[in-house]
Amino acid sequence: MRIPVGIVGVTGYAGQELLRILLRHPHASVQYLGSRRLKKPTTFGNSLKILPFNPKVAAARCEILFLALPHGEAMRLAPELLKKSDLKIVDFSGDFRLKSTNTFRKAYGMTHTAAGSLKEAVYGLPELHRSEIPKHRLVANPGCYPTATLLALAPLAEEGLIAADGLIVDAKSGVTGAGRAVNEDLLFCEVHEDLRAYKVDGHQHTPEMEQELARLAGRKISLTFVPHLVPMNRGLYATLYVTLKRRLRESAIRELFERRYDDEPFIRILPKGSWPRVQSVAGTNACEIGLHLDPSGRRAVLLSAIDNLGKGAAGQAVQNMNLLFGLPETTGLTPSSES
Amino acid sequence: MRIPVGIVGVTGYAGQELLRILLRHPHASVQYLGSRRLKKPTTFGNSLKILPFNPKVAAARCEILFLALPHGEAMRLAPELLKKSDLKIVDFSGDFRLKSTNTFRKAYGMTHTAAGSLKEAVYGLPELHRSEIPKHRLVANPGCYPTATLLALAPLAEEGLIAADGLIVDAKSGVTGAGRAVNEDLLFCEVHEDLRAYKVDGHQHTPEMEQELARLAGRKISLTFVPHLVPMNRGLYATLYVTLKRRLRESAIRELFERRYDDEPFIRILPKGSWPRVQSVAGTNACEIGLHLDPSGRRAVLLSAIDNLGKGAAGQAVQNMNLLFGLPETTGLTPSSES
Amino acid sequence: MRIPVGIVGVTGYAGQELLRILLRHPHASVQYLGSRRLKKPTTFGNSLKILPFNPKVAAARCEILFLALPHGEAMRLAPELLKKSDLKIVDFSGDFRLKSTNTFRKAYGMTHTAAGSLKEAVYGLPELHRSEIPKHRLVANPGCYPTATLLALAPLAEEGLIAADGLIVDAKSGVTGAGRAVNEDLLFCEVHEDLRAYKVDGHQHTPEMEQELARLAGRKISLTFVPHLVPMNRGLYATLYVTLKRRLRESAIRELFERRYDDEPFIRILPKGSWPRVQSVAGTNACEIGLHLDPSGRRAVLLSAIDNLGKGAAGQAVQNMNLLFGLPETTGLTPSSES
Amino acid sequence: MRIPVGIVGVTGYAGQELLRILLRHPHASVQYLGSRRLKKPTTFGNSLKILPFNPKVAAARCEILFLALPHGEAMRLAPELLKKSDLKIVDFSGDFRLKSTNTFRKAYGMTHTAAGSLKEAVYGLPELHRSEIPKHRLVANPGCYPTATLLALAPLAEEGLIAADGLIVDAKSGVTGAGRAVNEDLLFCEVHEDLRAYKVDGHQHTPEMEQELARLAGRKISLTFVPHLVPMNRGLYATLYVTLKRRLRESAIRELFERRYDDEPFIRILPKGSWPRVQSVAGTNACEIGLHLDPSGRRAVLLSAIDNLGKGAAGQAVQNMNLLFGLPETTGLTPSSES
Repeated sequence: MRIPVGIVGVTGYAGQELLRILLRHPHASVQYLGSRRLKKPTTFGNSLKILPFNPKVAAARCEILFLALPHGEAMRLAPELLKKSDLKIVDFSGDFRLKSTNTFRKAYGMTHTAAGSLKEAVYGLPELHRSEIPKHRLVANPGCYPTATLLALAPLAEEGLIAADGLIVDAKSGVTGAGRAVNEDLLFCEVHEDLRAYKVDGHQHTPEMEQELARLAGRKISLTFVPHLVPMNRGLYATLYVTLKRRLRESAIRELFERRYDDEPFIRILPKGSWPRVQSVAGTNACEIGLHLDPSGRRAVLLSAIDNLGKGAAGQAVQNMNLLFGLPETTGLTPSSES
Repeated sequence: MRIPVGIVGVTGYAGQELLRILLRHPHASVQYLGSRRLKKPTTFGNSLKILPFNPKVAAARCEILFLALPHGEAMRLAPELLKKSDLKIVDFSGDFRLKSTNTFRKAYGMTHTAAGSLKEAVYGLPELHRSEIPKHRLVANPGCYPTATLLALAPLAEEGLIAADGLIVDAKSGVTGAGRAVNEDLLFCEVHEDLRAYKVDGHQHTPEMEQELARLAGRKISLTFVPHLVPMNRGLYATLYVTLKRRLRESAIRELFERRYDDEPFIRILPKGSWPRVQSVAGTNACEIGLHLDPSGRRAVLLSAIDNLGKGAAGQAVQNMNLLFGLPETTGLTPSSES
Repeated sequence: MRIPVGIVGVTGYAGQELLRILLRHPHASVQYLGSRRLKKPTTFGNSLKILPFNPKVAAARCEILFLALPHGEAMRLAPELLKKSDLKIVDFSGDFRLKSTNTFRKAYGMTHTAAGSLKEAVYGLPELHRSEIPKHRLVANPGCYPTATLLALAPLAEEGLIAADGLIVDAKSGVTGAGRAVNEDLLFCEVHEDLRAYKVDGHQHTPEMEQELARLAGRKISLTFVPHLVPMNRGLYATLYVTLKRRLRESAIRELFERRYDDEPFIRILPKGSWPRVQSVAGTNACEIGLHLDPSGRRAVLLSAIDNLGKGAAGQAVQNMNLLFGLPETTGLTPSSES
Repeated sequence: MRIPVGIVGVTGYAGQELLRILLRHPHASVQYLGSRRLKKPTTFGNSLKILPFNPKVAAARCEILFLALPHGEAMRLAPELLKKSDLKIVDFSGDFRLKSTNTFRKAYGMTHTAAGSLKEAVYGLPELHRSEIPKHRLVANPGCYPTATLLALAPLAEEGLIAADGLIVDAKSGVTGAGRAVNEDLLFCEVHEDLRAYKVDGHQHTPEMEQELARLAGRKISLTFVPHLVPMNRGLYATLYVTLKRRLRESAIRELFERRYDDEPFIRILPKGSWPRVQSVAGTNACEIGLHLDPSGRRAVLLSAIDNLGKGAAGQAVQNMNLLFGLPETTGLTPSSES
């Protein structure tokens, strides 16, 4: 099987990583590369041609389209594209992640214009929505912060072990996470030898995490989220501080995690006293999770590392494609740094 | 006035930064540079001579000695050095920071051998112990993590506003914070394009923070502390999550901080919506603090940035020297990045 | 076809990269991973087992062994290993690159102890020795500096266009090029925000370049080589200044290069006014070459970029393996950054 | 003495470094900070006020103005400013460095509009033009590449030892050298883990170097110059390959350099076998020079390191100010990294 695939927004960092993965994928055949920035076709690298984006051409050539565009673009394109009945879409933006258009408006500062398509969308975190994903044609690929956070919280949330307040997400991201926007704040000399928090008073990924947590736990759990920018190209590290509803032993939590993720090829639970590092997941679709319990037995520290362009974007998108087409989930993907 | 000063451990990163500051200090005259590693005198840079460390020579030449040595060294040296009645010591290690030798043993994994000198020591965080420091001859220069953390917490702790549990310190350090130990984990290729937490299950700075917090608050406050290593040479960033004992407005907290630090030349409280960055404090003795209050009004996020070699080590040591000799605290120091 | 392969020295940077490539290689089956450092078997990543190196076990399990060891080790191992008549070896060290044991002794400061095996060795730069490589069982994988340099010089050298003196190689290497030696000079804080030349008065790769240049040109060409250490993990950039034997036009040189490398999948000659960059070759087996001719028409500037762990080490080793086993050279390798 | 000084273009990297130096300078009093970008006054750091640039206000308040502006701006401002008879100017741009307006036009792609002021300008490299500088009111602060290059070449050029062709300048610059322009090529993710040559076919600093070399040597010496961008904030490293007119011994060259720079506080000639590194000059006004002679005795390798914002821009500007006002040249400047 060779699936004709297309990428829109291939010149961004996520788009480039996606192309790199798809060119190695044994069942993908890249049939369309589009960019909104281009005025005329351009040759990329040795031989690939990128075209000025044209939705009709893209839809005609492909069975699946990856949209790696800024927020607000996919909701303008999806309704039209989905009219082609055999086309599937994996969208990298926040447009189809939030079920509530009201929440979307507050988080992204724009009105949602494709509420109809929203109903057809599924939140594409395979470890949490594996069975639903293949039933949909529009997959909302999760944000990088929510991916690292939700994978670490799911085992506790599903067991109802997280207290309703007292959840803290302190996250650190490499700079590709900010995209390729030409912005003074992202100049080399402004980031190198620097570290800074940003959007402390509100990041668009907070409602995304809260929505999924509520689904997992069956009730609202609010969280405090502080993202930081770190001088590295790739990598995302979430350090989570979880107040537990009841006293637990660390070994019990570890067992819970190991059981929950036993069959997951991309999730690695680290042994006692080992902590994740970005280098172990860079270039892969893996998520490394470390655990520590405070002596009090009431607060767990969870550490979760992914490659923001891998499991946090392009890798996860391909994992979703594999699910959509009934392929083994690891097809074309790298589960760990040494493989 | 020209104070004869000496540095022991001048080849480490903190020692080098200290030398750089002291050579510019208008009232310091560098009379002794010692290193335990050297077997014979060595010329450093253009003309400075470093000697194999000899305590007698050091004490004879100086009125103040800075000990920038690994933990455990100062407690072997201090009792002898303090016999010279007009010698003052600023110690960079953890040897004289903890009042309890029992706590010291647990934190550093060694028995304290200078309990007598310990009684003569003062915790050298000028913003908290200004009046006591000049009465002592042995100053325990605080750790870098405690400095950033305590400066951010003091206003709330002094007012009794911090709940007894629920305090989280998520800290990020540049690599000079680990010293110049030749260790595979600190090789360039192991740190660059990486981020990792370390000592999640116990860092020696935790009891130091708890000791000072208890003093400020008048009762025990326990905290969860997770340090991370960031690929930059200098800088320390602490993101603190504080459960408040009662509901507050952000403006009230901001006023409290501004009032508390109004006269402090090295502390900058950032305006609403601004967050500290490492580049703003690099090369200075400043501490930048940003504030955010969760909509609930019950959790404050405090962000605190220092240069780990500046306010976190050498700068603070010189601030302590200025206090010990009755000089204006800013003498020879840089309060902000543009000065 | 599945070739049983083994790696000795798998914990170094080149060994790790090699493992990463071989695990994806459609015709390789990793049957042995050894490390001299280990005292007992260790599990690596998810499931791979690394053994304390035992030559007999390694030889018994594999048809090809990659030796990624420090200089001097391979010459102790190869004679014994080659007794197993169907075993092939690709050696990453300098042990079998130099035809003259006298030159070897001067370059590496040790006596060559396997002159017999040396005769069986071939210099493994496929673009220059393609037809000879499959006839040998011992391949000396070239150094990273010689690879970038020789690929850029070959077209001119083969045409006899390089003047006998006046050849300069100014090279810049990422830090993995120095290996994983635990050395104060390679600590993060010593390399970050630094740049330095090293071994200006003699680098062991100089005779290697001179040997191959002499072969290509049919006479001795001496060169001045200055390597520099650059604060990045991966990448090698050689800027070559070539005095030409006669006046040429840039277009003529460009044609010569394009013709010479027309069929080479890993060599990219950049168009006029474009210069190589490390990011374009990172993670690949590609070599990018840019050309510029001084207005005088007598001096060419050649710019050549490779990934020191790719075409400069592990990638090239796999290219050699492909040749040894009659596979297409690109099998399992990445010719360019977007693929 | 307190000299009223002003900076125009204070928000750029060179302007910021200049401000940092001037605030510590014992004889400078910062009276004016201007920026062309601002529409209204802005407070900078703790208390400094930056004004929208107004030449009249600037000239009225200061005895010396530093112009840290893009090329082309100073030549529009200088004629008017110089009408104030007691005002001195140090210009950071290329506008007044080249004696020939024809050469200027070719190098900078614009017509020179202040040929009159050009006659009043002096090339501000104190080690080469010490006696002339105080006689001028308009100092053209040299480019960073020419500074590192000319300081290394001067001893040989003055003795007529450099062959007329065969001079190569391979230079490596930190990213602040490119200024604060918001340009996709200078985004963090485009520079980090990258290295690239640029402007290989013509950089505006080439004629500047050739002009000064011709003056030193008394005849035209042409050179090949290739600049490279290195992933570090600060630092400039020039590796020079010099064909000598006659055979020399390395010791003779070393003596020549030591004699030439014996009294220069900012120039350090390194001993045999030592090579400069950027970290040794970062944050200082120093230039470190290392020497090596090819075994042939006919080619010298000179290695020269400066901080591009120090001796390559702001430090040198203050050295020029000191000369203009009859102060010791080292006033307010840092001759070496440990001071």
